[in-house]
Amino acid sequence: MSNPPVRTVFFVSDGTGITVEMLGHSLLTQFDGIAFEQVTAPFVNTRERAEEWAARIAVLVRDGLRPVVLTTLVDESIRAVFKSTGAFVLDFFEMFLNPLELELGIGSTHTMGRSHSARDRAGYQQRMEAVNFSLAHDDGISTRDLPKADVILVGVSRSGKTPTCLYLALQFGVRAANYPLIPEDFERGEFPPALAPHLGKIFGLTIVPERLSEIRNERRPGSQYADPENCRREVAAAEAMMRGLGIRWVNSTTKSIEEIAATIMEEIRIVRRAF
Amino acid sequence: MSNPPVRTVFFVSDGTGITVEMLGHSLLTQFDGIAFEQVTAPFVNTRERAEEWAARIAVLVRDGLRPVVLTTLVDESIRAVFKSTGAFVLDFFEMFLNPLELELGIGSTHTMGRSHSARDRAGYQQRMEAVNFSLAHDDGISTRDLPKADVILVGVSRSGKTPTCLYLALQFGVRAANYPLIPEDFERGEFPPALAPHLGKIFGLTIVPERLSEIRNERRPGSQYADPENCRREVAAAEAMMRGLGIRWVNSTTKSIEEIAATIMEEIRIVRRAF
Repeated sequence: MSNPPVRTVFFVSDGTGITVEMLGHSLLTQFDGIAFEQVTAPFVNTRERAEEWAARIAVLVRDGLRPVVLTTLVDESIRAVFKSTGAFVLDFFEMFLNPLELELGIGSTHTMGRSHSARDRAGYQQRMEAVNFSLAHDDGISTRDLPKADVILVGVSRSGKTPTCLYLALQFGVRAANYPLIPEDFERGEFPPALAPHLGKIFGLTIVPERLSEIRNERRPGSQYADPENCRREVAAAEAMMRGLGIRWVNSTTKSIEEIAATIMEEIRIVRRAF
Repeated sequence: MSNPPVRTVFFVSDGTGITVEMLGHSLLTQFDGIAFEQVTAPFVNTRERAEEWAARIAVLVRDGLRPVVLTTLVDESIRAVFKSTGAFVLDFFEMFLNPLELELGIGSTHTMGRSHSARDRAGYQQRMEAVNFSLAHDDGISTRDLPKADVILVGVSRSGKTPTCLYLALQFGVRAANYPLIPEDFERGEFPPALAPHLGKIFGLTIVPERLSEIRNERRPGSQYADPENCRREVAAAEAMMRGLGIRWVNSTTKSIEEIAATIMEEIRIVRRAF
């Protein structure tokens, strides 16, 4: 059997390319059975840079399947360079800005690279402070500033708390602390006392014990810590504890970090502090 | 003078809402002089949920300026619920999927919530490993696994290395380490020896000394560490050292974390490991 044809997709932006990449990736996940080679072209903010990329695209047009070019280009003359290659070009701004201009009754500024610029200094500061907050309140290191936390994640060791907190901080500017539920808590049969005043903003992460055991085994092979039976006991005890206190939780085994983060934002009704 | 009118914009998704939020925010940055109230509605994957949101939107339509509703909804019947509200609705999938289907000669799967699902388990693992790598190689804590790093960021303390590494890990699945350039290095006049074997993947961050002094003052007010003259000396010494070794750098003062990360990806020619 031959391999499926590979279609090259270019994500072209006059800024970081992060929006068009996410956008494009989201579209491509809707097509099964085609292999895509994905190439990002950021900072294409001059005709010269556009022409360098266009030359590369034109070669592909000539030699094989014509590439798909998804763009977020504010400047029409730069867009035109890509359209002249013969590739299949869809520009995101072109399709959305015109109808929006009509609806809002105002022209858009046509400023390049705005969406992830440092123009929004307050928002940027929020995000940096949130990252520092998350690092300083990772794994229960400090409980001093928990009153300032927007959310406090709890769960057994290696249930995914740290990456989730960092994602919440970077993506939403949210101050996310995390605190482990450990065997001592389960033996004592008591939720960590330091968290008692903050029940309203606590959210749980849980994980399938078999998966937890795998993850822990990578860290400490053959340990009691990673033992499947021990993992089962810890997860059951943590879930019982959360249930008893009415703490909502999600299972990180089958969810992406974006899904976990978006669920938390919605459940705790956190308002994002920054874009 | 009266305040500008506030236009409510809803970002509606059948998944996390992260794509449509980024998309919408990117579009709105192109309009000056209008205040937008931005509301995200994630996980709108049933008609019931759609109708709850539609009721809220319909009230706004009746009472004032009609809201803008930007959506990434795969299911047409859910989209129709929003269109019936009388709001101004633009759906991203509707505008892009049809032309793409024609071009690719294949129907799309119309599967909800795919773009940030945990379906891509390998990619997810990459990102989690990258986060763990970044945390284990933050601030020069460990040099053991530097051969495995995709990039090593260097710069003076508080120049923005840690958040940039975490962003690279979470967004691109890239293994990013960071290593501080400290006064001892400048006195010795020698680049940290541990980094010598890795010059090809080192990238620098620098910062305007006045800004650095402000940031350090928040941490240790009135210290020698935060002193403006000391900050000037450290930054000048770090830049001289990087220049001497041909290490490229960006100035984090005027750039967002996304711009810094995209610049590094391009300059070091790192291939992203995950979406």
